[in-house]
Amino acid sequence: MVGATGAVGAELLRVLERRNFPVSKLRALASGRSAGKKVQFRNEPVAVEELGEKSFDKIDIAFFSAGGEISRKFVPTAREAGAVVIDNSSVFRMDPEVPLVIPEINGQDVKEHRGLIANPNCTTAVALMAIYPLHRAFGIRRVVAASYQAVSGSGARAIAELKDQVEAAAQDRPSPPQVYPHPIAFNVLPHVDVFLESGYTKEEMKMQNEGRKIMHLPGFCASVTCVRVPVYRAHSVAVSAEFEKKVSVEQAREVLAKAPGLELVDEPVQNRYPMPLNVAGKDNCEVGRVRLDCALDNGLAFWVSGDQLLKGAALNAVQIAELL
Amino acid sequence: MVGATGAVGAELLRVLERRNFPVSKLRALASGRSAGKKVQFRNEPVAVEELGEKSFDKIDIAFFSAGGEISRKFVPTAREAGAVVIDNSSVFRMDPEVPLVIPEINGQDVKEHRGLIANPNCTTAVALMAIYPLHRAFGIRRVVAASYQAVSGSGARAIAELKDQVEAAAQDRPSPPQVYPHPIAFNVLPHVDVFLESGYTKEEMKMQNEGRKIMHLPGFCASVTCVRVPVYRAHSVAVSAEFEKKVSVEQAREVLAKAPGLELVDEPVQNRYPMPLNVAGKDNCEVGRVRLDCALDNGLAFWVSGDQLLKGAALNAVQIAELL
Repeated sequence: MVGATGAVGAELLRVLERRNFPVSKLRALASGRSAGKKVQFRNEPVAVEELGEKSFDKIDIAFFSAGGEISRKFVPTAREAGAVVIDNSSVFRMDPEVPLVIPEINGQDVKEHRGLIANPNCTTAVALMAIYPLHRAFGIRRVVAASYQAVSGSGARAIAELKDQVEAAAQDRPSPPQVYPHPIAFNVLPHVDVFLESGYTKEEMKMQNEGRKIMHLPGFCASVTCVRVPVYRAHSVAVSAEFEKKVSVEQAREVLAKAPGLELVDEPVQNRYPMPLNVAGKDNCEVGRVRLDCALDNGLAFWVSGDQLLKGAALNAVQIAELL
Repeated sequence: MVGATGAVGAELLRVLERRNFPVSKLRALASGRSAGKKVQFRNEPVAVEELGEKSFDKIDIAFFSAGGEISRKFVPTAREAGAVVIDNSSVFRMDPEVPLVIPEINGQDVKEHRGLIANPNCTTAVALMAIYPLHRAFGIRRVVAASYQAVSGSGARAIAELKDQVEAAAQDRPSPPQVYPHPIAFNVLPHVDVFLESGYTKEEMKMQNEGRKIMHLPGFCASVTCVRVPVYRAHSVAVSAEFEKKVSVEQAREVLAKAPGLELVDEPVQNRYPMPLNVAGKDNCEVGRVRLDCALDNGLAFWVSGDQLLKGAALNAVQIAELL
């Protein structure tokens, strides 16, 4: 496990335990800075070793969640050593030789792997958990979406930054932003990832790019605005989707209620709808606010929340390992 | 001024001062609960009187911002007494005999008033400040939008609720929700206003309904998801808009840069884009993140932030009074 001391690494350990994944030996790897630390796995301390050229001897499966640079550098090393890599970074996702997999959607693509499988973007994964079953029923054409992304998506320092900023506000002291370019407490930032020439961010284009690959749908279009919000954990996405076939809310609800990895939480009049506070720590994504879209033909509007550290990262990675 | 002690009332007083509105006498009205309190206007204390049948004698202009029930009950009283009412509630907005006015868009509609002019919904007003100039240039057909709405839109108790909840989190004590059905601190709620049979909320349909009336565009369609976020002040809206004519980002930016009441803040690579923290307390709305929409034909995606207590309420009301 590369990045064993990070936010996703910590979740990976818990998911492996919880799902009783057969692990005969766990090697916890991180940067030199973290070497010597210990992580807990199945109630045993595991010493964290510094990631290096020899780290992957006799390793069957290597989870990478230490950022793009580390993946770019060490994924080849791991593959050469014979490990099958499940990579959480965005580096290899669009490589046509690398399967990009959400097990509930395109689990069969795992078979095509050549020692490397990519784990999808978190916001994309959460949204596709609802979009894909609807696509199977009605044939998706395009979506317009806006995200509400938690700070844990930017790692442990971002969590600390939000916490300090809200406390600083109460104590009337300054807490200048470091992780984000602007304060995140009591603010929202229409800025996740870097900006492209088109004006979209890289993050915003992932739903279209990765969605096409995961759903095997080269014509799929998605216009997304990605926004960071002062929430600790779990992403939400407001989606308007246009389909080939005529849709009905009843049918859509039936489809969503049966979809694996997804729960329909849709009793708005009883104040029941998906929310980040409710899905944080849960494996399943939640979908609700399902309604006929009043601006799109054969359109549905809905709202999805999901724990981006689980379905958007650690859980999905372990599910891929289970398929292997 | 009906509702002089409320969140919008306080803003109205400041806007009247700031814009040097000709006021020979201000009568501050509120519920019996607030009677006896004082509000400050032009450095003088003004005693708050209890709203009643006799409140509107010799009044030229009556601002109402005390909620729908009070408007329903006392707007007729004020009109009978000869006042021209500028009403901030949603009660009369869709009445065909009542002009619904954003001065920068349909100021001329003020002329049709019969003693009552309605002030538009705050999220709608903020979004239309950018949508309308683009409509003039390219002909709007439909929009898909998602909002990020501040708690001050729910009044002073909601501001206190968010404040207490974040402090409670730091002190590890409970702070159960009272204004909202769920905690708003570190959460987002896809729930603003009451739910309709269609699955949309009333708030969500206001952009289409009020947008049609304000822009004189009966065919305008808007599918909106309205979401409350843990921000104190200023609403933001992610908009994808489809136009009749071919659009370009350059032209769109030119149009938006010239639009009255709007500022183009669109240098994303320099981390410059509209944000609630930056527009809070400002008269002008801000628009940025302008890009060709990758899912809509002749489409533009953009992001608008605006102080909903100002352009969405007090400022717009005073601008209407200025037209009168």
